[in-house]
Amino acid sequence: MHNDLEHLIKLFARLPGLGPRSARRMVLQLIRKRESLMQPLIAALVQAEKNIRPCSACGNLDSVDPCAICADPRRDAASLCVVEDVADLWAMERSHFFRGRYHVLGGVLSAIDGIGPAQLAVDTLIARAGEPEVSEVILATNATVDGQTTAHYLTERLSECNVRITRLAQGIPMGGELDYLDDGTLGAALAARKEF
Amino acid sequence: MHNDLEHLIKLFARLPGLGPRSARRMVLQLIRKRESLMQPLIAALVQAEKNIRPCSACGNLDSVDPCAICADPRRDAASLCVVEDVADLWAMERSHFFRGRYHVLGGVLSAIDGIGPAQLAVDTLIARAGEPEVSEVILATNATVDGQTTAHYLTERLSECNVRITRLAQGIPMGGELDYLDDGTLGAALAARKEF
Repeated sequence: MHNDLEHLIKLFARLPGLGPRSARRMVLQLIRKRESLMQPLIAALVQAEKNIRPCSACGNLDSVDPCAICADPRRDAASLCVVEDVADLWAMERSHFFRGRYHVLGGVLSAIDGIGPAQLAVDTLIARAGEPEVSEVILATNATVDGQTTAHYLTERLSECNVRITRLAQGIPMGGELDYLDDGTLGAALAARKEF
Repeated sequence: MHNDLEHLIKLFARLPGLGPRSARRMVLQLIRKRESLMQPLIAALVQAEKNIRPCSACGNLDSVDPCAICADPRRDAASLCVVEDVADLWAMERSHFFRGRYHVLGGVLSAIDGIGPAQLAVDTLIARAGEPEVSEVILATNATVDGQTTAHYLTERLSECNVRITRLAQGIPMGGELDYLDDGTLGAALAARKEF
């Protein structure tokens, strides 16, 4: 195998979830579909590399700054949804339920990884939450230990702002079968039970 | 999510083994590691797109033609190993056992997919096998139904050439446990048993 190909395969293998085998399959597929796949992919990568930047307001990725969500006047400026990273923002957007704006933290507090508030977009969150039009901050961090620790920390920090602080409900996921759920989820769902 | 990103994610999702979720993770990782990963990947893709071509002799992919293997005088010209595609050639090369040259068929005979001998590099194989320096053709097609059908067909076609025709041994793989092997493998290994 020649160096050009080996080099390309090594770079692909560094992408998340890929090993050498899947990287090789991908590179072969690209070479096979040179015009229908490889050339468009190169063009799209060049375009994204040149244009995509984090939004200076919320941290979302877009080719315009402020991003399309921040710039959209139909989005509710009163509601701010705090997410760990852009993938979570995309997940929220796919659900089509949230019509407010976002704030991307860029991670979670983690003593092990040495990530404190200074490494996250916390100060900018406090500043945004203090703006008069914002009335609610929804903490949509993941339901992991680090995610919940971060949510608790943010609740404390946000107490100085005059906003309602909420978090996503925990419970049984849609289509969830009790027999397959972990005890924590089941316990939380029971504790948070509602009138039928 | 902006169009540039969506377009890039859609292209990544067309690669083998990737769905929308893994494509999104990859694109986010690329944007995060713009200089250490995205820019080198773009450069490597551009380089490969420009340079990588199938070898006109054997069908291997390389940035030179004939490929590095065909051009290497230390490789044994007497032995020709027939593989289905370039991924199989790479697998053979990784084992470091074969020191001859290759012939890439570009697929296997398949009635369902409408692939006959004309769609594969069969005529060029017969021509190469007829060259005076070639004394052995190793049929290294996969141990699938289509792979074995193709091997049988090639055996017939190659009978007109004055070459020894061999195929890879079938049996228990290294480290294989009998309890986990399929009946076909076990039966073939028993039938092909050797003196200890």
